[in-house]
Amino acid sequence: MNELHFAPGACSFVPHVALELVRAATGEDFAPRLVKLHKGEHLTPEYLALNPDGQVPLLVADGRPLSQVVAICDWLDRQYPAAGLLPADPWTRAQAMSVLAWMNNTVHPTFTHVFMPHKFADGELSHAELKRFNAERYRSLLERIQSLVERGAPWLFGERVGVVDAYALTLLRWGGMAKIDPDSLPAYKAYVDRLAATPAVAAALERERLPLHTFKKD
Amino acid sequence: MNELHFAPGACSFVPHVALELVRAATGEDFAPRLVKLHKGEHLTPEYLALNPDGQVPLLVADGRPLSQVVAICDWLDRQYPAAGLLPADPWTRAQAMSVLAWMNNTVHPTFTHVFMPHKFADGELSHAELKRFNAERYRSLLERIQSLVERGAPWLFGERVGVVDAYALTLLRWGGMAKIDPDSLPAYKAYVDRLAATPAVAAALERERLPLHTFKKD
Repeated sequence: MNELHFAPGACSFVPHVALELVRAATGEDFAPRLVKLHKGEHLTPEYLALNPDGQVPLLVADGRPLSQVVAICDWLDRQYPAAGLLPADPWTRAQAMSVLAWMNNTVHPTFTHVFMPHKFADGELSHAELKRFNAERYRSLLERIQSLVERGAPWLFGERVGVVDAYALTLLRWGGMAKIDPDSLPAYKAYVDRLAATPAVAAALERERLPLHTFKKD
Repeated sequence: MNELHFAPGACSFVPHVALELVRAATGEDFAPRLVKLHKGEHLTPEYLALNPDGQVPLLVADGRPLSQVVAICDWLDRQYPAAGLLPADPWTRAQAMSVLAWMNNTVHPTFTHVFMPHKFADGELSHAELKRFNAERYRSLLERIQSLVERGAPWLFGERVGVVDAYALTLLRWGGMAKIDPDSLPAYKAYVDRLAATPAVAAALERERLPLHTFKKD
């Protein structure tokens, strides 16, 4: 049985949705393991033995740990092709992997600069500048995702909800915490609202008890 | 035929080695396309039409563009399993994908903070701090890679040189530019020296005219 170590609202939402899609397509269940980051549960000796990075997500497959969103998604897609986590056509799959990798190495870390600037610098002034600079950059990256949304139909890579969609939802949610009003990205917001109503995504949102939109006007 | 758009010394070295490994295993040739970043060739309308990110690497496969190191490596591995770009055993392959993704989303961007701090902030003071803070962090990440090197034999994932090895070489080369003396990471340096002497890696180094070690004492 697959176990998923996740933290509510983190990028572990992506494999969380993946495992819900696997369950819907194949009947194979999984064990969700909530990691309370605010209580430091990702830094206990037990957790670090499984994942020396102290990060979520971590998939434990038949007792063996696998870290990294991209690697977990690729592994699950290969194990459960019926779930459609990535497109079946090889070239379309490669394009989806490209967007997944870009979200993971560019869009996601840009948000991290806004949310956790202490990971990149240690001075107060630098923190303020990292937040401001990267919140602007983050907005332009969300606009890029919106242009992908406008091109794809109904989902980013065709007829089935996949892992790239789950990441797109996560990144717009985080936008609210970077003071980006989702109403200023109407096509992206409408797509995320539709996505949130699909069964696998709705199940993951409910288990993580996530409000879909986090933006608050000052 | 595959075309690879690359810049000497950039992370495009990873798919460059991959295509040399493909040629050695299958006889399938490729067309290397040198992109002169210092002349802005990645920002021309022609290049941006292929890759709106204006980045290398870009693979053009039968006229169709594919960006992102991780996606290109996964695609080439699926197209040419005989080349051994990633391990054949599915679980070992998943572990290699995890390390590849980590190098790409954590180690590589940490170096970018040292080398191109203006990508993350716009003040001079912040740039100096980003360089200092992330050079230290980069060193600790190279130490992590050295521990992987010490565990793997002869290469990171077994008997065959693969894409994770090519990335490991690139990251140690960059270390020199972050003032990290490779002699201070002796197991990692010895592994990279051995790696550089293997045919596919030697061919890519020669085409890119790369000195293997970039560290200079002040």
